[in-house]
Amino acid sequence: MAWDTERTRRQLRDAALAEFAAHGLEGTTVGAIAARAGVNKERLYSYFGDKRALWDLVLSTELERLAAAVELTGVGDIGEFAGATFDYHANHPQLSRLLQWEGLQDAPPAEAPSRTVHYREKVARIAAAQRAGVLDRDVDPAHLVFALIALAAWWQTVPQLAEMITGAGPDDQQERAARRAFVVEAARRIASPSRTRPGTPRSIEPKLPHG
Amino acid sequence: MAWDTERTRRQLRDAALAEFAAHGLEGTTVGAIAARAGVNKERLYSYFGDKRALWDLVLSTELERLAAAVELTGVGDIGEFAGATFDYHANHPQLSRLLQWEGLQDAPPAEAPSRTVHYREKVARIAAAQRAGVLDRDVDPAHLVFALIALAAWWQTVPQLAEMITGAGPDDQQERAARRAFVVEAARRIASPSRTRPGTPRSIEPKLPHG
Repeated sequence: MAWDTERTRRQLRDAALAEFAAHGLEGTTVGAIAARAGVNKERLYSYFGDKRALWDLVLSTELERLAAAVELTGVGDIGEFAGATFDYHANHPQLSRLLQWEGLQDAPPAEAPSRTVHYREKVARIAAAQRAGVLDRDVDPAHLVFALIALAAWWQTVPQLAEMITGAGPDDQQERAARRAFVVEAARRIASPSRTRPGTPRSIEPKLPHG
Repeated sequence: MAWDTERTRRQLRDAALAEFAAHGLEGTTVGAIAARAGVNKERLYSYFGDKRALWDLVLSTELERLAAAVELTGVGDIGEFAGATFDYHANHPQLSRLLQWEGLQDAPPAEAPSRTVHYREKVARIAAAQRAGVLDRDVDPAHLVFALIALAAWWQTVPQLAEMITGAGPDDQQERAARRAFVVEAARRIASPSRTRPGTPRSIEPKLPHG
């Protein structure tokens, strides 16, 4: 039945996401994915081709979900865009792991042409906001896009460093909110035109230097 | 002879760094390290204990080298501190890979107590610079330390994203210089007090809005 096929496909994709996030492309076997899904290995091959094709599908699906989640906020408020990206990575730690495995592996990146188009569109939107005076023209828009992802995703990428540096574990909700607020503020400071950069209004009133 | 012992130890440590960076702690065997070094496996055990002890030694040695390289610049110029960290990671991509493997692995981090002390000292120095008015007091110093590492190391962590977003490959020296300049400027914008944040002086002269 079509309904059963759909359910089996979803079980296999969910199992593949879990296994790939835990062990990477090279460290995962088709047998392990099939066993986790409770589905015959042959059905995985017939539905998805091979392991590499399934990896590409899983990673690009996660990236599309991220894009859909943060697209809503647009680039009008660059801080909230970074904050939404932070939220997504915090709630979906598997995505950051997939990207890391991809960076560590010898295999070429998944779906590089379509992802490149997606990123270049994002860079173009930033550049347009710069021309409109909403964002600072002095910042390279591609570097800005890359840095916003860094600020948002680094916490999931090296959680052991985050814990050593901040002293707070992954389940500390107050710290998580503070990290998010930092990311929002940092993105604004990097990207905003100088006259709207937070804190700038203070300089209108002359102030004695502290020392 | 002592000289031979020293050379053999160094060969084993170099081989361990290469193997661990390529395959992580879990993906590396003692046999592979010994074979790469051209040294008997038994000597590795007698010199370093076991694989885990050698991993801890290799990672903490690389972190000490990073600390020594960037310590020279201090935190007086936060931008150059970030730039020096960027340089170190660009010249030593194996360090970023070791940190990633550590984040992906189930095993606890290497030498966590001494690294925590090192990071907390860095945070304390940032906090002191904030109290002195050199850096902005409104920024959490621990989050700042973490974000500076993110801005500096992210290029090595997900080089495939850097290439898709900027369109430039890892051997493009002009792009590398531009990335470094971006990191330096971004660090200053996040950390500097508002009145010295780059671009701020412009707001002293009233300016017509762009539209």
